[in-house]
Amino acid sequence: MRIALDAMGSDRAPAVEVEGAVGALRERPDLELILLGDGEAIEAELSRHKGVPRDRVRVVHTTQVIHASESPATAVRRKQDSSIVVGVRMHRDREVDAFVSAGSTGATMAASLINLRPLPGVDRPAVGTDLPSEAGHVLLLDMGANVDVKPHHLHQFAHLGTIYAQDLMGVKDPRVGLLNIGEEAEKGNELTLEAHQRLAADPDINFVGNVEGRDIVRGKCDVVVCDGFVGNVLLKFYESVASFFAKLLLEEMQKQRIYLDLSDLYRRLDYTEWGGAPLLGVNGVTIIAHGGSPPHAIRNALRVAARAVEAGMVDHIARRLQGRAEPPSAT
Amino acid sequence: MRIALDAMGSDRAPAVEVEGAVGALRERPDLELILLGDGEAIEAELSRHKGVPRDRVRVVHTTQVIHASESPATAVRRKQDSSIVVGVRMHRDREVDAFVSAGSTGATMAASLINLRPLPGVDRPAVGTDLPSEAGHVLLLDMGANVDVKPHHLHQFAHLGTIYAQDLMGVKDPRVGLLNIGEEAEKGNELTLEAHQRLAADPDINFVGNVEGRDIVRGKCDVVVCDGFVGNVLLKFYESVASFFAKLLLEEMQKQRIYLDLSDLYRRLDYTEWGGAPLLGVNGVTIIAHGGSPPHAIRNALRVAARAVEAGMVDHIARRLQGRAEPPSAT
Repeated sequence: MRIALDAMGSDRAPAVEVEGAVGALRERPDLELILLGDGEAIEAELSRHKGVPRDRVRVVHTTQVIHASESPATAVRRKQDSSIVVGVRMHRDREVDAFVSAGSTGATMAASLINLRPLPGVDRPAVGTDLPSEAGHVLLLDMGANVDVKPHHLHQFAHLGTIYAQDLMGVKDPRVGLLNIGEEAEKGNELTLEAHQRLAADPDINFVGNVEGRDIVRGKCDVVVCDGFVGNVLLKFYESVASFFAKLLLEEMQKQRIYLDLSDLYRRLDYTEWGGAPLLGVNGVTIIAHGGSPPHAIRNALRVAARAVEAGMVDHIARRLQGRAEPPSAT
Repeated sequence: MRIALDAMGSDRAPAVEVEGAVGALRERPDLELILLGDGEAIEAELSRHKGVPRDRVRVVHTTQVIHASESPATAVRRKQDSSIVVGVRMHRDREVDAFVSAGSTGATMAASLINLRPLPGVDRPAVGTDLPSEAGHVLLLDMGANVDVKPHHLHQFAHLGTIYAQDLMGVKDPRVGLLNIGEEAEKGNELTLEAHQRLAADPDINFVGNVEGRDIVRGKCDVVVCDGFVGNVLLKFYESVASFFAKLLLEEMQKQRIYLDLSDLYRRLDYTEWGGAPLLGVNGVTIIAHGGSPPHAIRNALRVAARAVEAGMVDHIARRLQGRAEPPSAT
């Protein structure tokens, strides 16, 4: 198993990436990593860790970094020697089995679309995120890759999410919900009204109907499908609400001079803990980690990548979506 | 000050409405209330409270109730003797200064649109919700009234929110943010890209630019504008995340055998505490309370209604939006 890791992506790159990589190497003896980025800086970070299995790490020096503020399409075209573009190309050329980055989501997605290409039957690959729920986990997709989508895209997301939940979350027959503003089939906007009809008519989707914002964390389904605008807003809102709660809770503990150990609670609420958002629907395994990732989140993204490779996720998606592409007129 | 209260709307009607009404009457000696609904049931509830100023309460018996599951437009047309329709009509005829309901949001909105009519210059009235934030409060609109909107509707929402924040939140020059998936002006979907241009070009809006999901509770602005689909999903998600968080916290306290008093924390997170969502942009004061409202939330919705009347909010909106209506071609 060989994975390329963009070492320049996170807010504290490359220290965080290297620490995460070292953790992953210790965890999986069959793992080989290619670290991409400023070779000197990466080597310096590697030398700070003891017992690194150097026979399983290779550093590939790249001279460019794509920043979150850049236009993804332009940056990917112009920065051919960036850690993201070089890493995705290594994956395209099958030098590695997967690619992981905590850098620009847009650029990672653009580079993957251009180089790996969408699988046949997939019009719009989607980014999934595994959130905590009262029942364990729930996969939300799309989380920001596609902001103006059509009903048939949401339908495809349902298939992508189903495979991911089967292969990586261990759910045999994943329940799929359509994020909407009411449970009834006749509730919603133009997009969800039509998507509901399509999902309800597809025998290959275990469609449980519309779900509301309140149902996401309640464990009513394993996969929640929405457009990338709503998904992105929700995910960022979730992050900030969790930290707002934590702040109010700390104030309360200080006021009452009572101290709870909150580390387990935070771990449960922190989706980066088991996270690493997969880009689903391309011909390859691309995992996007959060820019603010701590080392364990990088390690977990590498873990998710390895499991996706082992499970044969890409083949499963390809087989399921083959022949399902929309006729061009419908896109 | 005379307000009509739908006593049949909440999940525990009319007990909750009557208790909230009694609280409001005690709080404001100048308040008169009209309670609408099943007269016998309301009288029975009233008799359970001591010291009710009966000279300031009138019960108006209505024979029909509109349920949340009904199509709002049809229900409002057919159920002419429902508490919602009768209450809104009393407001239209200026028998009361405001109308409050914890019943069907859709029906309350439909009845208000039909009977009170949108103010000149307002194409789509919007529902606002006052959420807690790190800086105190933030008004989000629209929260579910309008699911397929155009850029000029978001622009109008910004004006409606500005007036509400001035009149009811006491903010002199409210900062308005456009909910989006990135801070840069060129980020977003078709709707927000154009709405951004419109808001940035309007000298009467204190536009702080795009805000992301994470900024809502961070106090970066006083008013956040979004379409009703996103708003509805966000609000319901907020509710459930708050209760999920509380559940995890209780588990943690039991595990550690440490007990914090969480009543203040819950009060801060509970938006119904100061809530009551205003329907902004109609020629009248309609306040929508949550269906799961406890009595204090009903009391607060009545308080918000009274303050909107006192502040002259409807006149302020009318003056600001006069002459701003879109030419028909743009709608």
